[in-house]
Amino acid sequence: MEHSNHEAVIVSSHGDGGLMTQQLLQELFMPFFNNDWLAQADDAAFLQHRDEALAFSTDSFVVSPLFFPGGDIGKLAVCGTVNDLVVSGAKPLWLSAAFILPEGLSIKRLTRIVRSMAETARLLELPIVTGDTKVANTGDPENLFINTTGIGAVHPRTYLNASRLEAGDAIIITGTIADHGAAILASRLGLDVEELPASDCAPLCYLLDTLEPFLPRIKMMRDPTRGGVATTLKEIALAAGLDLVLEETALKINPRVQAIAESLGVDPLYLASEGRALIITSQEDAAGVIEALRLHPQGKESAIIGSVRPGKGNLCLKTNLGGTRMLQMLSGTPLPRIC
Amino acid sequence: MEHSNHEAVIVSSHGDGGLMTQQLLQELFMPFFNNDWLAQADDAAFLQHRDEALAFSTDSFVVSPLFFPGGDIGKLAVCGTVNDLVVSGAKPLWLSAAFILPEGLSIKRLTRIVRSMAETARLLELPIVTGDTKVANTGDPENLFINTTGIGAVHPRTYLNASRLEAGDAIIITGTIADHGAAILASRLGLDVEELPASDCAPLCYLLDTLEPFLPRIKMMRDPTRGGVATTLKEIALAAGLDLVLEETALKINPRVQAIAESLGVDPLYLASEGRALIITSQEDAAGVIEALRLHPQGKESAIIGSVRPGKGNLCLKTNLGGTRMLQMLSGTPLPRIC
Repeated sequence: MEHSNHEAVIVSSHGDGGLMTQQLLQELFMPFFNNDWLAQADDAAFLQHRDEALAFSTDSFVVSPLFFPGGDIGKLAVCGTVNDLVVSGAKPLWLSAAFILPEGLSIKRLTRIVRSMAETARLLELPIVTGDTKVANTGDPENLFINTTGIGAVHPRTYLNASRLEAGDAIIITGTIADHGAAILASRLGLDVEELPASDCAPLCYLLDTLEPFLPRIKMMRDPTRGGVATTLKEIALAAGLDLVLEETALKINPRVQAIAESLGVDPLYLASEGRALIITSQEDAAGVIEALRLHPQGKESAIIGSVRPGKGNLCLKTNLGGTRMLQMLSGTPLPRIC
Repeated sequence: MEHSNHEAVIVSSHGDGGLMTQQLLQELFMPFFNNDWLAQADDAAFLQHRDEALAFSTDSFVVSPLFFPGGDIGKLAVCGTVNDLVVSGAKPLWLSAAFILPEGLSIKRLTRIVRSMAETARLLELPIVTGDTKVANTGDPENLFINTTGIGAVHPRTYLNASRLEAGDAIIITGTIADHGAAILASRLGLDVEELPASDCAPLCYLLDTLEPFLPRIKMMRDPTRGGVATTLKEIALAAGLDLVLEETALKINPRVQAIAESLGVDPLYLASEGRALIITSQEDAAGVIEALRLHPQGKESAIIGSVRPGKGNLCLKTNLGGTRMLQMLSGTPLPRIC
C-alpha cells in the first residue's frame, strides 16, 4: 500500500482511474470524508431536498493534448459531467465551470476552447450559470485545467443500483469501445494524422432519452471513461457481488483503434470512451433496449456484450478463441490525463 | 485590450481578481457564455427549481504556499465556497470537491490537507457528497489545485442586490482588513516566522446567522477576497451606479499586516480577506447590525467603514489627513494565487 508509507508521493498511475486511483480514494480520502453519499461511489451524488431528488456531479478535466480528433478539452468538460449525470438517471439542469489558466496560454487557443464549451452547452440547452477563473504557473502553457460541476433532476421512476443486478441480466454497450483513449494516445504520440481515429466524445442525454419507457427496469448505467470498459465493469461486479461475463466476439472496435492499441501494446478494454454508455438490464428487456438505442444515430452500434452470472465479483472475458480470461482493474499501465 | 490581440497570452495579473480578471471575463468568456445568471456577476448563481431557490457557487483554489499561518489550502477550499454561498444569503447544504494532484506531491502533505478539509466541513456539518481526483504534471509537486462547488438554500426573505443601494446606506465590515493576503505574501517571501500575521480564513456562516432578523433589509453582502476591500467595493459601486465613500480612520488593520504591507509597498485595501464580510444596509439598521455582529466572537471588530453617496460608480477614500483619493480596481500589481 504505497501511501501508508509517508515518504510516498503521488505518481501518474494514481490518476489512471484504475487500481491505484481506487486505493488512493479508499485509503486516503474515504477515512476522512466518509459519508453515505461517497460510500455509494456513484458518478453523481443523490440529494434529497424537500420533495426533490437532485443529482450532483463534479469532474476536473486535465486532458493532454487540449485539442484532439473529435473534440477538445472544452467539449469534453461539458460532455463529461453531463454524461455522469445522465448515466445516474438525471436530466442535467445547470453547470458550473471553473478554469485554471496556465501562465503563457495563448488567448487564441483559450478562445477556441471557450467557444467549443459554450457551443456544446448551447446545443444541450444547458446553461453555465456560475464560474471561476484562476491563473497559475503550471509548468507548461498547455496545462489548462477545467472543472465542471453539474446539478440534475433525477428521473422519478429511476433506481440505478448495482444491488439490483441478478444472474441472467444483460450487459449492453451503445457503440464501439476505446475510441477516445486511442485518439488521445495517438495525438499525444504524434502518430501520422491520416491514421488518427476520432474520439467518441459526445453527450449521452439524447441517446439515453430513448430509453425512457425502460428506465424503471434498467438496473445500472455507467460511462466507461478512465480505466475503460474493463475497469468500469469490474467495479460494478465488485459492487454487485456477482460475476460479469464479457463476450469478446460481441465487442465492436474501430479498426484504426485496434491498430493503435496493438502498435502501442495496450488493451482496448482499458481505454476510455467519452460518448458510450454501459447499460445493465433484465434479459427480457434487453432486445427492446437495443431496438430503442439503434433508432438513434448515436446508438446504431448498440449490442449486448455480456451477462451477469452467479459469482463473487469477478469479471471474465470469453475470448474469440473460446478461452476465459479474468480481467482486473487497470493497474500499472500509466494512462493518465485521458479526460 | 490585451486579449483582442491573438498573439497575446495569459499572464499572472489575469488571476489577481482585479481589472485584468474583469476584462478577461467580460471580453473573452461572457460573449460566449452570456446568460442572465452570469450577467449578475454574483458570488453564486440563483436557481429557481419548482418552489425552491437554490444558490450554486464554484471556486478553484490554487493558493501558494499550501500551508500558511492560520490555514491551508484544504481549510480555505471549504471556507471559500461556503462564504460565497453565505454572502449570497444562502445556507450551504452540500459540497463537491475535485482534486488535481501534482506528480510528486508528498502523500503525507496531501493527508494533512485532506484532514484539514474534512475537519472544516465537519465543524460546519456540511457533507462533501461527491468528488474527483486527477493527477497531472503541474511543474512543481506543491502545485495542488482543489475545486469546491457548493449548493445552498436561499433564505426566503433575502434579496441581496446592488440595485437596492441608496444614498445614505452604511458600509460595514466584520473585522480587520487584509489579514489573509498579508499572511500569504509573507509566507511566500519567507519573512521571519515570528513576525508573520495569521490569515483570517474562517467560515462566515455562524457570524452571519446573527443577522437573521435584519436579513430582509440587508441590501448587499460580499466577502472581499481576491482584489481586497477596494476592488470588491468598486465592483459594487459600478453595479449600483452610486458612489461609495470609505473612511480610512474607520478601517481596522492588524499592526503586523500594516508592517508587511508597508515593507512590500502594497496597499492593504487591495489585499484579500478570507473570513470577513462587507455588508451594506440602511443607515437606520446599521447600529443594530453592528450590535448583533459584535455579540459573536468573529464579529467583535465590526465597524461602519463608509457610506453610499449619490454618484456614478466611484469609490472614494477619505484619508486620515482629510484628503479624498479615488480608488480603482486592483490593476497591474501581480498578486495571484492568493486563494
